[in-house]
This record gives sequence, structure tokens and C-alpha cells, in this order.
Amino acid sequence: MARQTPVIAPSILSADFARLGEDTRAVLEAGGDWVHFDVMDNHYVPNLTMGPMVLKALRTYGITAPIDVHLMVKPVDRIVPDFAEAGATLISFHPEAVEHVDRTLGLIRECGCQAGLVFNPATPLSYLDYVMDKVDLVLIMSVNPGFGGQKFIPAALDKLRQARERIDASGRAIRLEIDGGVKADNIGDIAAAGADTFVAGSAIFGATDYKAEIDAMRRAIG
Amino acid sequence: MARQTPVIAPSILSADFARLGEDTRAVLEAGGDWVHFDVMDNHYVPNLTMGPMVLKALRTYGITAPIDVHLMVKPVDRIVPDFAEAGATLISFHPEAVEHVDRTLGLIRECGCQAGLVFNPATPLSYLDYVMDKVDLVLIMSVNPGFGGQKFIPAALDKLRQARERIDASGRAIRLEIDGGVKADNIGDIAAAGADTFVAGSAIFGATDYKAEIDAMRRAIG
Amino acid sequence: MARQTPVIAPSILSADFARLGEDTRAVLEAGGDWVHFDVMDNHYVPNLTMGPMVLKALRTYGITAPIDVHLMVKPVDRIVPDFAEAGATLISFHPEAVEHVDRTLGLIRECGCQAGLVFNPATPLSYLDYVMDKVDLVLIMSVNPGFGGQKFIPAALDKLRQARERIDASGRAIRLEIDGGVKADNIGDIAAAGADTFVAGSAIFGATDYKAEIDAMRRAIG
Amino acid sequence: MARQTPVIAPSILSADFARLGEDTRAVLEAGGDWVHFDVMDNHYVPNLTMGPMVLKALRTYGITAPIDVHLMVKPVDRIVPDFAEAGATLISFHPEAVEHVDRTLGLIRECGCQAGLVFNPATPLSYLDYVMDKVDLVLIMSVNPGFGGQKFIPAALDKLRQARERIDASGRAIRLEIDGGVKADNIGDIAAAGADTFVAGSAIFGATDYKAEIDAMRRAIG
Amino acid sequence: MARQTPVIAPSILSADFARLGEDTRAVLEAGGDWVHFDVMDNHYVPNLTMGPMVLKALRTYGITAPIDVHLMVKPVDRIVPDFAEAGATLISFHPEAVEHVDRTLGLIRECGCQAGLVFNPATPLSYLDYVMDKVDLVLIMSVNPGFGGQKFIPAALDKLRQARERIDASGRAIRLEIDGGVKADNIGDIAAAGADTFVAGSAIFGATDYKAEIDAMRRAIG
Amino acid sequence: MARQTPVIAPSILSADFARLGEDTRAVLEAGGDWVHFDVMDNHYVPNLTMGPMVLKALRTYGITAPIDVHLMVKPVDRIVPDFAEAGATLISFHPEAVEHVDRTLGLIRECGCQAGLVFNPATPLSYLDYVMDKVDLVLIMSVNPGFGGQKFIPAALDKLRQARERIDASGRAIRLEIDGGVKADNIGDIAAAGADTFVAGSAIFGATDYKAEIDAMRRAIG
Repeated sequence: MARQTPVIAPSILSADFARLGEDTRAVLEAGGDWVHFDVMDNHYVPNLTMGPMVLKALRTYGITAPIDVHLMVKPVDRIVPDFAEAGATLISFHPEAVEHVDRTLGLIRECGCQAGLVFNPATPLSYLDYVMDKVDLVLIMSVNPGFGGQKFIPAALDKLRQARERIDASGRAIRLEIDGGVKADNIGDIAAAGADTFVAGSAIFGATDYKAEIDAMRRAIG
Repeated sequence: MARQTPVIAPSILSADFARLGEDTRAVLEAGGDWVHFDVMDNHYVPNLTMGPMVLKALRTYGITAPIDVHLMVKPVDRIVPDFAEAGATLISFHPEAVEHVDRTLGLIRECGCQAGLVFNPATPLSYLDYVMDKVDLVLIMSVNPGFGGQKFIPAALDKLRQARERIDASGRAIRLEIDGGVKADNIGDIAAAGADTFVAGSAIFGATDYKAEIDAMRRAIG
Repeated sequence: MARQTPVIAPSILSADFARLGEDTRAVLEAGGDWVHFDVMDNHYVPNLTMGPMVLKALRTYGITAPIDVHLMVKPVDRIVPDFAEAGATLISFHPEAVEHVDRTLGLIRECGCQAGLVFNPATPLSYLDYVMDKVDLVLIMSVNPGFGGQKFIPAALDKLRQARERIDASGRAIRLEIDGGVKADNIGDIAAAGADTFVAGSAIFGATDYKAEIDAMRRAIG
Repeated sequence: MARQTPVIAPSILSADFARLGEDTRAVLEAGGDWVHFDVMDNHYVPNLTMGPMVLKALRTYGITAPIDVHLMVKPVDRIVPDFAEAGATLISFHPEAVEHVDRTLGLIRECGCQAGLVFNPATPLSYLDYVMDKVDLVLIMSVNPGFGGQKFIPAALDKLRQARERIDASGRAIRLEIDGGVKADNIGDIAAAGADTFVAGSAIFGATDYKAEIDAMRRAIG
Repeated sequence: MARQTPVIAPSILSADFARLGEDTRAVLEAGGDWVHFDVMDNHYVPNLTMGPMVLKALRTYGITAPIDVHLMVKPVDRIVPDFAEAGATLISFHPEAVEHVDRTLGLIRECGCQAGLVFNPATPLSYLDYVMDKVDLVLIMSVNPGFGGQKFIPAALDKLRQARERIDASGRAIRLEIDGGVKADNIGDIAAAGADTFVAGSAIFGATDYKAEIDAMRRAIG
Repeated sequence: MARQTPVIAPSILSADFARLGEDTRAVLEAGGDWVHFDVMDNHYVPNLTMGPMVLKALRTYGITAPIDVHLMVKPVDRIVPDFAEAGATLISFHPEAVEHVDRTLGLIRECGCQAGLVFNPATPLSYLDYVMDKVDLVLIMSVNPGFGGQKFIPAALDKLRQARERIDASGRAIRLEIDGGVKADNIGDIAAAGADTFVAGSAIFGATDYKAEIDAMRRAIG
């Protein structure tokens, strides 16, 4: 199966929340493919960010790109339909945050979204053993979600390779996403390890020229 | 002790999250006194809204009015310093959501903010018995927080009167705030029952003319 | 307001679960007015009993008497609609087991049932302060729910009197129910203290003649 | 080691709860080998079913067949002795629902019952790595427990084969049970994948002739 | 009813844990009446201190004075028998930390200990409404338990007076204990407000001469 | 990489808590290398033992040996800095007790301590897959922590061999520790299976001559 087209997904957690519509539009016009939307609940991670109402406002504002929701929440099921109704395209969650992984994957799809599983840096990939037919995306965390000031964790490269093997063996069109410390100068290695979907927050929104940064990333992916 | 100047606190939960800075500035220019900031964590209430990063973005955008944070979260203590650092002026919480009410009130003040206690519609006022010297604001809920489509609960008027008695008896400059279903056509009765601080969300942001609506409220308060 | 007609509500927790339809029918034919249905979840109390499917089976079997569901569960809201759909008439819960007492009372009524609040032996009546217009039943526990081998707690008589005063003052048709250690030889005092609805389990189902026992209770109520 | 005799375990969750003794006896006389007893607590799964008192009533009614308790509860340890005293033969639990898997397995055996581990559809088999000497039964879920309207999940067949390998490698008399969507028309494939113990609920209790259905299943097992 | 003999209960949380037997004996020989034993579990309060094995070691060491256990833990019931078996004389707990206050009071007495209820600074006294016949001790906290560096909270004096009224009205021999910031220079006012049992930690163990400090306290009590 | 020098770590959970400084010094003088410090919180395990204040008292008493803290608590992160400040040398925790294993390992090292992961008897080693560069110690439990009266679980020997392979393959100086039922007569087999660090509690403190027992262990290790 051919590798999928690379996707760059700017994380709007690093955007300007006072002008979120405008800033999101700008990053998409600068070449971002998806909007990465980080949801924290102050329980699964020690921070609280934004919920379905914010997502819905982006849709109302006119954002039509895929919105890729990463739920750093526990529990998960109750809030899934809220995000689907608000306009999410993909919804990913951490397997440790639910009792019934298979059921939550099914619920996301029943709500009309694509479903993803997220792996914390130390989480084994064995959660994928029996659900490869139910995931549309595997998200490998290369930092610990919800904590600040972290660098890309090198062990994530091995994990990407192992996840890539599982995906290729499945013969399915499952995206392999990476999140945490992704920059133009390491994105080439990350792509070589098997990732095809790249989340970047401060690297893009902290740049003076979004387009230059995204272009640099795309060149490095090759 | 003389009654305090009335304050109208538009709840930006009803603002446009895609243009939050602009919409917040507009409502303040239209006569809003404070910014009411509703934080939900999907645990204490079944919704998740916005956190400290959103508040900080408003400060960076240039909003200088008092920001009145209503925490509908459980537990409370870990996130208090985050809101204080982000620029909160007042922080209120539900006594049932903490183990140590007195301690959390003290923590908020140590962080440089004013401290409030919030009372759900059925919550007795006895939580105030021994902390009148530690609260700057008492918030009476006239709807159930976090659930949609509710009307002003009439029993809140009696509760306002009882809270007013406690505040007057204390001789302290404690604000008495009301939140839920407040509109121009009931705000007069609410003020008469003792409230001096009025949260209004959809009534203001749903109006075509924020100023006209706020003016109507102020006239009704008398 | 005239006192309501006394109701005897046999608790089928003491019935024969292998022949629940038959035993329930027998106790109703012997003079029971309501079916009292005790739901325990092994979290709010250290036992697990029966859920909505059992209630529904009784309706299918042909039981048409009011079914009075006492939820000893925490949390409460998710399971309320299940019991309503299964055929419950009244649903009562413990205020400590929910975050939003007013909301749960409203939910039960929206589901088409009557709503009750249950008071553990040590729970103060102040939970009633602002919801008298939303309760159809007040249930005073005279034993600790979910624990075996207990006798009627005498302090419940004072509590009944205080609850009776609140109900009479409200001018509303709210039932005052008692549960725990009720027998023919103390039911007279209990009625005198203000109860009008009487739960009895082992006293009835442990008797060789259900009717004789229920008749004795009714005579003692006077 | 020779494969064990097939066992059909009708799940009485689909029986008539108003006539549970009679219906259970009927299904056993129709050829059921074990009684499968599904316990849900409205915490580990979103439903609440039945507890130890119901099980005990079946024993008192005269049911002497093995009763196979599947605990869909969290936590587990407190209620284990209650089920053992009520007359359970086997007790199974989900490893994610306890902190100390080895300890809970030991506790069940100390209580005089056989011990089982249950695997949700997405749960890896690695929980078996160090406890093969402490399990009497491995239960593979082919639907998500506690949620309605699901079909047999095909990935369960692979999982059965892998569990079968582990059991055969251990040389121990461990039963391999399947639960979820089992019917006469797929039970042959399920048996071929390695299962020797078959739970069926609606397939049997929904049939007009329990015996005909059970006979059909047994023929398909071959 | 005559006021009870004053009791001074040094809190060994301030003793030397490396020489706990010796230090405890010293403070008793210096005039301490009871040993106050503070148990924190890092859940109800943000600290973890010591458990039943430490208490038992004191009994084995030869400490025969009453040991007054203050449980700052949640939940409570499981650990009560452990402390009773280890040699506790009194066991007190926070009503917010249990579901069934009356039951836990009963459990403590069934285990052969005296039972106490502890009130956090903001906790209303209404938890006493229906259990005056089941408490042997009421403990008023004059600091927030588990947090360091606090001073005596003045509102505790009013609360002591109100608790004293309830105790006197009951006609029962219930001790009224105070804990938090008690020193020789405020113990007189505290005694005047109605306390008869005084916990002191750093004031005693931080003194160079335990006996001089305890004597000073006793003189101030008058 | 050469195997590390064997370490014997007496668990002071079996020492005399009334004379903890003296007893700890005695066991170190008798040849103990480290002090093993077992922390239980009555949540992760059903017992509560001792916290940071006890550890600090040992340092103040003059104990300079490495103190090896085994946290049987959940959650973990809040208390880690407390133990580091109190003087811990190593801090180990159970991966199931945290949401973010990698983060907690990093936190322990940031606090200046060595970091360990503890494996319950049934816990798979897959938690080590991506963190071998972040652990200084792997602790294999050969009993269930927090429960009394258990013997060495034989399956722990296989697990030690597998952990040894992982450590040797990593080329890192990671200690492999064993805890539970270790005695002079099985410590030889345990060492042969790959352990280099040995916790022993009652075997040492229950002996009349600490030194003779430790010497016997050392001889058996060979």
C-alpha cells in the first residue's frame, strides 16, 4: 500500500485565543492541512484548554479544513458526541483513559468521525493488537501531553517504526501521526521513521512567517 | 453599610470564540463592567469550555476590566494559581467541589485574587457560617451550571434575600452575584432581592445591540 | 392541607428473587400499596442488588402498582432514564450522591416520574431548603442503607417531625416516607411522628401470612 | 493435553427476571451446562443488573448446576466473598478493573471458587503472562460488555487462537470461554478457533424452543 | 452536667519519628494526658504520615495512655478496624469523608473505641443534628488539616461556643476538642469558649522543656 | 556490561517503629546496604504506613545509607518532591498508578533521585518498552504489595530472567531488585535468575541476629 500524502496539522493550542478564527485561517492559508485541536480537562492532564463550543465557533467562522481533535480527557465517551456535533473530523483518545477501547472507537465512527488512538511516550503498542480495523489514525506522542517545556523524546522514533510496521502489515489506510517537539530540523528523521501526519504548535505559531516555516517542514519531509 | 454599585458581568461563554478579543472588547465598550469567565471541566459539570490560556490571551489582547472566573471544576486547588497567573481578578468555586473550603478561599487570596463561593440552586447557605471574613463574593446560581436550556429558578430570590441578610449582618463589603436566566425583564426583581452583581450571557450576546440591552438592564436595576 | 392516605410499600429486596413476579403479586394482593425497589451499586453502599431489567420484568409480568425506586447509587443521573423507561413511578436518590440536586430532581420529572430525596440517618434536612417545589417525596432512612442487621434508629422520629413541619409549611402534597426497621409494633409511633408512607421488608416477607402482617400495620397506623 | 468437554452456558441476563428460578431450570433441563451470571455495577459498564442475593435465591430454589459469575464491576475485591457465599462456582473479572490481578485471582480461589480473567475486545493477552497457574478460565469477549445491540466482533477469532496456544502451552486444564453474539451459525467457527465454553443469551432465551437451539449449537460445535 | 476535666493531647506528628517511643513517653511524663495521632493519606489531605503499625509499635513499647486517632483519610471505614486492633482508644473522622456518617460512628464503637466527628474550619455543625447519642468527642479544627504554616483561625472560637451549647443541651459526656495553633497564650480563650480537650504539637515538641510548656498551658486553662 | 555488586536492602516496614532510628542503624551496621522504605496510602494498597516526615527523621538521626523508597500510592506525582526533599535516594512507583509513566520517571530524576518502576506479580514487562533510558532500577514484586501472609511467587523467577535480558540488552547500569518472601534459602535462586538488589523484611528483622542473617544471604548470593 502506498504511503499517504503528508499532512501538516498546526496545533492551535499555540495560536492567539483572542483572535482564534483569524489566526487559524492564517495558518491554513500558509499551508497547514489540518487544524489540530488539543482538549485538556485538568484530570487526565494538569491543564484545561478548550471544548466543543470553541470548535463550533471555528466552523461558524468558516474554517472548513479537517479538524483533528486530540482528547486528553478521562473519561472520554460522554464528550465524543459533543465534538462530533460541533464539527470534528477526527477524534483521538488515550486507551488508558477508557474502560472499553473498542467501544469508544466504534462510538466515534458511529458519530460520523474518524477514530484515532493516542500513545503516551511509555505506552506499549499492544493496545493496537485487536483493533487495527477500527482505527483511522495512530498518534504517537513524542512529549508527555499536558506538561510544558519538553523536547522531542528520541524513543519515539523507534516507536514510529514499530507502528509503521503494524500499519503496513494491516494493509489499511491508517494515518501515523506524531505530536511533540516537531520542528523543521527533526521532521525529516520523523518522516523517515514512518510518520505521515505532523503536528506542530509553537514551531509554526512562534515563527514570524507561518508559510516559511511550513514550507521548510514540507521540504524536510521530502 | 451602603449597598455597592451595581456591576453587570457579561458571560463570554455566549460570545464568539472565533473573535473572542473583539467580542469581549465590544461588550465592555457597550457598558459591561466585568468579564464573567465560565470554566467547565467535564467532571463537575457535563461540558468543557475554556482554561487559563484563553484568559491570558484576553489580557494580552488588551482587556483590562476585572475578569470574574467561575470555576465549575472538581477538584479546584491545582488550577487556582494558573488562573491567577493568567490574569484573573476574582475566582469563585463550589464548596462541594473541594475538601477544604477555608483553605481554598485562603489560597485564592494568597494568589492575589478576590475569592468567591458559588451556591448551586439546592445548596444550603450554611457553607457561609464560618467564612464570612474570607469571601469577597457570594454567587447564587439561578440555573444548574453546565446544563443548557434552563430558566431562572424562582427559589433563587428567597436565597438572595437570605444571603443579603448574612452579608449585611457581617458588615463586610461582600458582593452578591446572580447567574442564570438573568434578563432585562427580571433583573429588577433580582436587584430588589439583594443582588448587586449580575451575570448575563445570551441575553446580552444574543441581542443585536449589546449597549441597548445593557442599558435596559441598568435602568431596570434602578 | 389534609394528611395523605397511608401507603404501605413492601420492599421486594426481601422477596424471593427466584419467583419475584409471583411473590410481588402476592404481597400486593395481601394489601401492599406500592412496590419498594431498592437499587444498590456496590459504590454508594457495599452491596449490589438489581437494576432496570428486573423492574421491567415485573411490569411485563403484569405488576401495575406504583413502583417506588430507591437509588442507593452514585452517581445518579445516567441511570435515571433507564428506570423511567423500565416503568418506575417514583425515583428517589441521596443528595450527597449527586453534584446537582436540583438538576437531578428536574431530570426525574422530565422522565415522567415523581421525584424523591432520601436522607441518611445523619444527613441534615437543609438539603430541602430550596427544593420543596421539586420533590414529591421525602424519604427518611431509619437504618443505614446497604448494611445488614440494623434496628430502627430512634433519632429518626425527631427527624420525621421536622420533615413533617417543612412539608406542612410548604402546603404541598409531598409524601413523607420511612424506611428501616419498620414493624407493626413501632409503626404507630412512626405514623404519629408524621410519616404517611411506610417501607417494610423482612417484617412482611418474613411473616408466614403477608396479609395478617400488613393488616396489623394498617391497624397500628390508625 | 486433551481438549475439555464443551460447555454451553446460557446467560440468564436474557431470562425472565420475574420467573428466574423457573426459567433457569428450564434452560438447564433443555441442555444448558452452566448458568452464566452477568453482574454489572453501572460503573465499569453503563448498566446495573443483579447481585449476590439473586444468585443465592437460585441456589435456594434448587439450581445445582455450576454458576459462572462474570463480574463487570470495578473495584472487584469487596464483592468476591459475597458471591462465593451466595453459591458461585466460578468468578471472573476484568484485569483493568483491579490494581492487583494476582491477588484477586488468589482471593477467588481462597473463597473456594474457580477464578477467571476476562478480556475486553481490545485488551491484550499480556495480562496472562505471569498468572497461567492461577486461572481456571479465560473469557474472551466478542462484544463490548454492558452495551446493547452488538454483533460478534471478528477479531475475537484470532484472539481465541492465541489464547488457545497459551493454554495448550501451559499444559493446564484451563477453560477458554467466549461471550458475545454467539449463535448456532457461528459457534462452529468459534469452537474451531479454540473455545470450549460458550455463553449465549438471547440466542437461547429468544428461541421458542430452548432445547432445539441448544441442540443446534452442540451439533455445530461437533 | 459538670464540665469534664481538661485533657492535653500532644500531637506526636511533631515528635521525633526516629525515637518515637522515647519522645512519646517523655511528653506523657511531662504531663501530657493523651497521645494525639494524626493520620494523613495523601488523598483527603496533601500529606501522608503514619498508620496502624506505628500505633501498634507504641503500645508494644509500653505506652498505655489513651491514643486519640484523628483520621484525615477518605474513605474511612476499611481502616477503622486496623486502628482499633492496633490499640486506638478514640477514633475521629471527617463527616465529608464518608457516605454514611451514622454507620461509621457505629462501626468505631463496635470496634471497642470511642467515636469522634471532626469539623474543618468551614464545615457547618449541622452534621451533629441527629448523632449526638453516637459521638464521644467533637473535634473543631482551628487550622486546615494537612497544610503547613497556619495560625489559629479566630472563627473557631464562635464555633466552639456553638458546639458547647449543643453538647450541654444533649446532657451527654461528650468531649470538645480543639486542634490547630493552640499555644499557652491562646489556650485560655479557647477553654473559655468551651473546649475541654486540647491538641498541641509544635508548641510542646518545639519547646526545650515539655513540662514547662504543658504546665503553662494548664495554668492558662485555669 | 558487568553485573553490579549485590545490594541487600532491609525493609524497615519490619523494624520497630518506636525505635526506628536505632533499629535502622543496627541493621545497617549488621551489613545492610540500603534502607528499603515502603510507603502505602490505603488507596493503591489496603494499608497505610509512613510518609516523608518519617524518612526525614531518619536522615536527621544520622542515617546516611541510600534510602530506597517504594511508593505503593496512587496517584504518585504530588508526593514525589516531598520524598526527594526529605532525603530519598531512589524513588520507585507502579506504572498502573500514574497516567504518564515517562513524565513521572522524569520528575523523579529532576528532583535529584534515581527512578524505578515496580512490577506487580501479574504486570507485564511491556511498560519497559520505551523507557529503558529513564529507569535506574526495575523492581519485581514476588508477593502482592500491601497484603500480608504471602509466600514468594515462583513465576517471579521467570520474570527476573526476562527483565535481566532487557537490562543486559540495554547496556545500561540498571539495578534489578526483588521484593517479597526473600530469605536466605531462596536468595541463591533469585540471584541466579538475575536479581542484584534484594529486599528483605521479616527475614532480617525477625531474626535474633541481624548480622548472621545478612551474612547468610550474602553467602547464598555467592
